Amino acid sequence: KERLSVALIGHGFMGAAHSQAWRTAPRFFPLAVEPEMSVIVGRDGPRTEAARERFGWKRAETDWQAVLADPAIDVVDICSPGSSHAEIAIAALEAGKHVLCEKPLANSVEEAAEMTEAAVAAAKRGVRSMVGFSYRRVPAIGLARSLVRAGRIGQVRQARALYLQDWLADENGPMTWRLDRSLAGSGSLGDIGAHAIDLVEHITGASLTSVSGTLETFVRERPLLADGVGLSGTASSERGQVTVDDAAWFLGRLAGGAADGAVGSFEATRYATGRKNGLTIELSGSRGAIAFNLESMNELAFYDAAAPAGEQGFGRILVTEPEHPYMANWWPTGHTIGYEHLFSHEVKDFVDAVTSGVDPEPSFTEGLHVQRVLDAVERSAADGSAWTPIP
Amino acid sequence: KERLSVALIGHGFMGAAHSQAWRTAPRFFPLAVEPEMSVIVGRDGPRTEAARERFGWKRAETDWQAVLADPAIDVVDICSPGSSHAEIAIAALEAGKHVLCEKPLANSVEEAAEMTEAAVAAAKRGVRSMVGFSYRRVPAIGLARSLVRAGRIGQVRQARALYLQDWLADENGPMTWRLDRSLAGSGSLGDIGAHAIDLVEHITGASLTSVSGTLETFVRERPLLADGVGLSGTASSERGQVTVDDAAWFLGRLAGGAADGAVGSFEATRYATGRKNGLTIELSGSRGAIAFNLESMNELAFYDAAAPAGEQGFGRILVTEPEHPYMANWWPTGHTIGYEHLFSHEVKDFVDAVTSGVDPEPSFTEGLHVQRVLDAVERSAADGSAWTPIP
Amino acid sequence: KERLSVALIGHGFMGAAHSQAWRTAPRFFPLAVEPEMSVIVGRDGPRTEAARERFGWKRAETDWQAVLADPAIDVVDICSPGSSHAEIAIAALEAGKHVLCEKPLANSVEEAAEMTEAAVAAAKRGVRSMVGFSYRRVPAIGLARSLVRAGRIGQVRQARALYLQDWLADENGPMTWRLDRSLAGSGSLGDIGAHAIDLVEHITGASLTSVSGTLETFVRERPLLADGVGLSGTASSERGQVTVDDAAWFLGRLAGGAADGAVGSFEATRYATGRKNGLTIELSGSRGAIAFNLESMNELAFYDAAAPAGEQGFGRILVTEPEHPYMANWWPTGHTIGYEHLFSHEVKDFVDAVTSGVDPEPSFTEGLHVQRVLDAVERSAADGSAWTPIP
Amino acid sequence: KERLSVALIGHGFMGAAHSQAWRTAPRFFPLAVEPEMSVIVGRDGPRTEAARERFGWKRAETDWQAVLADPAIDVVDICSPGSSHAEIAIAALEAGKHVLCEKPLANSVEEAAEMTEAAVAAAKRGVRSMVGFSYRRVPAIGLARSLVRAGRIGQVRQARALYLQDWLADENGPMTWRLDRSLAGSGSLGDIGAHAIDLVEHITGASLTSVSGTLETFVRERPLLADGVGLSGTASSERGQVTVDDAAWFLGRLAGGAADGAVGSFEATRYATGRKNGLTIELSGSRGAIAFNLESMNELAFYDAAAPAGEQGFGRILVTEPEHPYMANWWPTGHTIGYEHLFSHEVKDFVDAVTSGVDPEPSFTEGLHVQRVLDAVERSAADGSAWTPIP
Repeated sequence: KERLSVALIGHGFMGAAHSQAWRTAPRFFPLAVEPEMSVIVGRDGPRTEAARERFGWKRAETDWQAVLADPAIDVVDICSPGSSHAEIAIAALEAGKHVLCEKPLANSVEEAAEMTEAAVAAAKRGVRSMVGFSYRRVPAIGLARSLVRAGRIGQVRQARALYLQDWLADENGPMTWRLDRSLAGSGSLGDIGAHAIDLVEHITGASLTSVSGTLETFVRERPLLADGVGLSGTASSERGQVTVDDAAWFLGRLAGGAADGAVGSFEATRYATGRKNGLTIELSGSRGAIAFNLESMNELAFYDAAAPAGEQGFGRILVTEPEHPYMANWWPTGHTIGYEHLFSHEVKDFVDAVTSGVDPEPSFTEGLHVQRVLDAVERSAADGSAWTPIP
Repeated sequence: KERLSVALIGHGFMGAAHSQAWRTAPRFFPLAVEPEMSVIVGRDGPRTEAARERFGWKRAETDWQAVLADPAIDVVDICSPGSSHAEIAIAALEAGKHVLCEKPLANSVEEAAEMTEAAVAAAKRGVRSMVGFSYRRVPAIGLARSLVRAGRIGQVRQARALYLQDWLADENGPMTWRLDRSLAGSGSLGDIGAHAIDLVEHITGASLTSVSGTLETFVRERPLLADGVGLSGTASSERGQVTVDDAAWFLGRLAGGAADGAVGSFEATRYATGRKNGLTIELSGSRGAIAFNLESMNELAFYDAAAPAGEQGFGRILVTEPEHPYMANWWPTGHTIGYEHLFSHEVKDFVDAVTSGVDPEPSFTEGLHVQRVLDAVERSAADGSAWTPIP
Repeated sequence: KERLSVALIGHGFMGAAHSQAWRTAPRFFPLAVEPEMSVIVGRDGPRTEAARERFGWKRAETDWQAVLADPAIDVVDICSPGSSHAEIAIAALEAGKHVLCEKPLANSVEEAAEMTEAAVAAAKRGVRSMVGFSYRRVPAIGLARSLVRAGRIGQVRQARALYLQDWLADENGPMTWRLDRSLAGSGSLGDIGAHAIDLVEHITGASLTSVSGTLETFVRERPLLADGVGLSGTASSERGQVTVDDAAWFLGRLAGGAADGAVGSFEATRYATGRKNGLTIELSGSRGAIAFNLESMNELAFYDAAAPAGEQGFGRILVTEPEHPYMANWWPTGHTIGYEHLFSHEVKDFVDAVTSGVDPEPSFTEGLHVQRVLDAVERSAADGSAWTPIP
Repeated sequence: KERLSVALIGHGFMGAAHSQAWRTAPRFFPLAVEPEMSVIVGRDGPRTEAARERFGWKRAETDWQAVLADPAIDVVDICSPGSSHAEIAIAALEAGKHVLCEKPLANSVEEAAEMTEAAVAAAKRGVRSMVGFSYRRVPAIGLARSLVRAGRIGQVRQARALYLQDWLADENGPMTWRLDRSLAGSGSLGDIGAHAIDLVEHITGASLTSVSGTLETFVRERPLLADGVGLSGTASSERGQVTVDDAAWFLGRLAGGAADGAVGSFEATRYATGRKNGLTIELSGSRGAIAFNLESMNELAFYDAAAPAGEQGFGRILVTEPEHPYMANWWPTGHTIGYEHLFSHEVKDFVDAVTSGVDPEPSFTEGLHVQRVLDAVERSAADGSAWTPIP
């Protein structure tokens, strides 16, 4: 079997998740090529070497440009901070590497647009690119999409998409790079709100055309981070300024697909006490509804208004059947999967597209669109929540 | 409209519930006659008078025999302790009064058999009788019965019926009359297990034919009750012996109806910490399943194995639609009912039967059968859980 | 015991609910006076007479002004359409009758302001008034309020209050008076959104100070109603214009109480397929959270961030304990109540206030404030969702 | 880092799960040695070679005895059918290999006893053995155990442990080797009931001392399996006899630990329509309760009766915090794990024990005990459910 040589840029949370996916996907999905975990790249030599060992890569490097220049490398998987995406992705595409880039595509619309331009040009040369909205690969989301696209809930009138976390609820929790606009681009909005946007559009096939948004920073100053652990960390005695949104709310008008004329209400927050990873999506249609909660990601609730009167109710589908997307390749019915599996699905789909010579989804164009929605929300918020068109 | 004059015997928890039902049922259901809350009967004069005022009866009496002798009385509603049921019910039936008798029908099979004999004889004279298994009147139970009887879950193979309460979980909780065998007949088994038995048979149309049972008393001595409140009360310094079962478990074989050849597993306990009124019923059939929990009594879960593969799941039906039993007469869809409504449904059905000249259900014969099951469980438990036929 | 003579204006859904409450409250709560269901008033003689019999009132009348002139009447309970509230309430207060008025207080801010003025003047003469936001009387809401006011969830940062119904999801469902702006004043916003506003403010003690709102009418033309049943009805062949909002969304800034500086997100819709009476409230605070859903109204979810790390979780409290508001007067622990009980609680509180000589809550002033919020939402929606202060 | 060379016997469902664990555990947990996936063993050469490639082992072999003779092999991981466990495990232990053996330890008490004898003897020579009750490694189960052992639910009085599956609910589903007593040893009882037994004892530290059991085979004849897929498969036209139990129920008395004097009720079935992998455990104690459902394996419900009156409720703990067993090594809070992670935990614990020179848990002695319980249930069932002591 041919090899597909992969370079991973970054070794944080996403680097760990992608590593596990590159190692696991070929064991559970029949891929046309055998991915090779060739090189992991980071800025700090010793930390990158430690990550190499822990994550199981062959080689560690600190110079991403040198890696891009290596003709043996087929794929560049970008898991570094958003501010670095554009430079690396564009260079990789120009070097003829297929690119898998974590979301958000970039920290600005401008960068995302340049990346998209590069991706479109590269595609003409058979070089593929994909942005990593991994939640599209939740089997329950795939099932929701099939049901909605098949008309099972009729015309969608309303979408409710909330991404609720609570790791900032304690006002004494420390600063992290995610609270610094210069590094993170935005706060809840871009970090988690982006997922909500992408999923609603992905499931329904509709696009947001205009938004009315509001942003809020509840706690403007926090202790500086002494040492990072997971998403939060321990506090030091100095204090820093929070320069991103703590919470974002927006309404959007949708056009096209199964949700033409619908209104979507969105919330992204890190202050929803008790909600740890509460990405909830509810779509209300003329013939039914679906509801999903990432905290119970192996389940989908489906309300079928075509069921006999008196028998209608939200059914809790345990999405572990061989009929469900990706699930036939894992375990028998009733045996659940976890968060990391989404990345194995992503790798599988990416590799399939690369080896079949088709463009994978979501494309950079889709990533750019999400970026434009985020930007419109910020502009609306700055303009007193005025309705703002998505370009 | 003609009057139907009612005498209520007893003024405890059940007396209060029945009073509310006699007052309410005619306001929500079109009855052929107008029930009249004529007289309430208790042993203690002042307490009965207080109950009369509180519950809204015209007259209070302490001599139930005198009340039975009153030709103006049409119905005798028996809510006194189980040990008094037989004497009063038989006398009432012989006096030509229609009788509604709370469950359990009696404290012994012998008494229940005599009552049933009297009821059968009375029925020939047009005098009606009914035992008060009020949970049959939960709309969700009615819906479950319709679905099961219509074959929507196929052949029932297994029933799981648990009645979980926790008011004895604290070993320092005081004695009440319910823990004294001479007054209560049995413990969890008869008090709450009886409901589980009746519901499984009612929904499926099957009958238990043999059982294997176990009883347990976890705490054999408790502080005596100083003053009763609700189901428990406050403790005094003296201690009394618990002479009934704290918990009962039994398996039963079912014959007939939709559950021919099925096995039912039953539990009744007052030690299920955190479960307040957790009567849960699950029926597993060859084509589907239903699940119910009394703590969420306006809901029924229905699993339809005939739904398309990949779409099957337990649906949560909010049982508040006009299609659902009794519900068209209450509030609009989505507006729930509570515990006491079951008694209004019971009164409605009882009055309908009396005025239509048909025998209401559940009959004393059915009450006797439940008594026989309880008795067989006790005998099995005394015999090392040996399988014991129901006569 | 002294009598309190009541006149009920209106005999629709709310008339039925209030009737049941006037009949029931005195049986379960020790009131200082005995309410007397003296007269029911409607425009149509025969229908009012039928309601009189069904609901159990002594007398039926068609002339409300004559009823107000009757010195024997102590209380006027207004359940007629919103457009009639102002005239009747003001006349009743001037006639010295205590007034219980259903929500919304009026169909316009102007009327509500006049009513409030009349109420404030009447209060000085010992004449009481109250607006019927019955959901304040859900025991779980009372428990939520206690917890929040006691600081158990810390400083509230976010409120999420959605009122989800689905009776318009089918675009072929017929017109009702509730879809006609001239009769109903507004659509989802006033009908059900008003409850969401009142509850968030009631629980937290905060007030909305400004809002950004959006309204939408998804289906602008519907078959005319042939005959009304419940909230919907059967369709005729002619079609009518829907002139109210089908759905409303708004954000609001809160000041004062436990939610000073918080942001609330609100939605009211009749298109949330599968949600029948889904009034959900979630409050996220710095030390915990509460969540409530009216479809499971005997439950409250409480997240205590002060619990030990690793043990925190949303606890499902079954709100049926004697410690919970109103519940000691109903049934033992674990025995649930239903929708109609809220009105018994309302009558109890209203009568207690009247007999104690204090002003009941919520006052007309509070009802006027809710009206002002609704009005600001409408103005904001008409102004491109611009943030609009509440006067 | 030193290598630990592993041989895997078997390449079915369990072989796949163990392979993924050997590959994954060292990437997420700091192990003292580096496991090496050296050789996979199966009876059929080509199928074993295919498994080798798919599961990622270095070498494929068909002669397990030759593999045991290879001095380079350190660990033998037995995932072959239960009937082969004894021979392989005893030989491996005698050859000085550490053994990880899937449950059930054997198909008979006799074999299990011999294996245990061999394990005890091997332990004296520093050779370790462990039986694979993987559900002990669910973080929520670990949390439950900590809470129970710390006395947080007081004295446990009742255990309810049900393992509900539904893959036989359809009577036309085909035979598999799991329905053949000569291959599988028993049916639901040993396959899934064994887990329920082990978990109740593991969490509470108590042991079952006697049981009263019942077995049932609902469908005695089924179409023969044409081709196996997952747990079921497609049917052929011939029919075979089902020679194992479809469902098993038993009560057991517990002694010791936190559940001294408690009664446990157990059910294992493949006919619980709609329940896919419904292993539910509820423990009711004098001061609280815990409840768990494998279908939502990242959650634990905990009821703390020491919480203030009126605030008690089953809390849903999302078991994804760094404080929870194993979770600090996976993903940030709120990011769930799946079924296969349990095997990574198992490998981690096994390797830790081997490298630390301590005996891992659960030991063969514990596996033998479970086997004795299963045997006692079968003997009780054959003896009319008579209470049968566990030797």
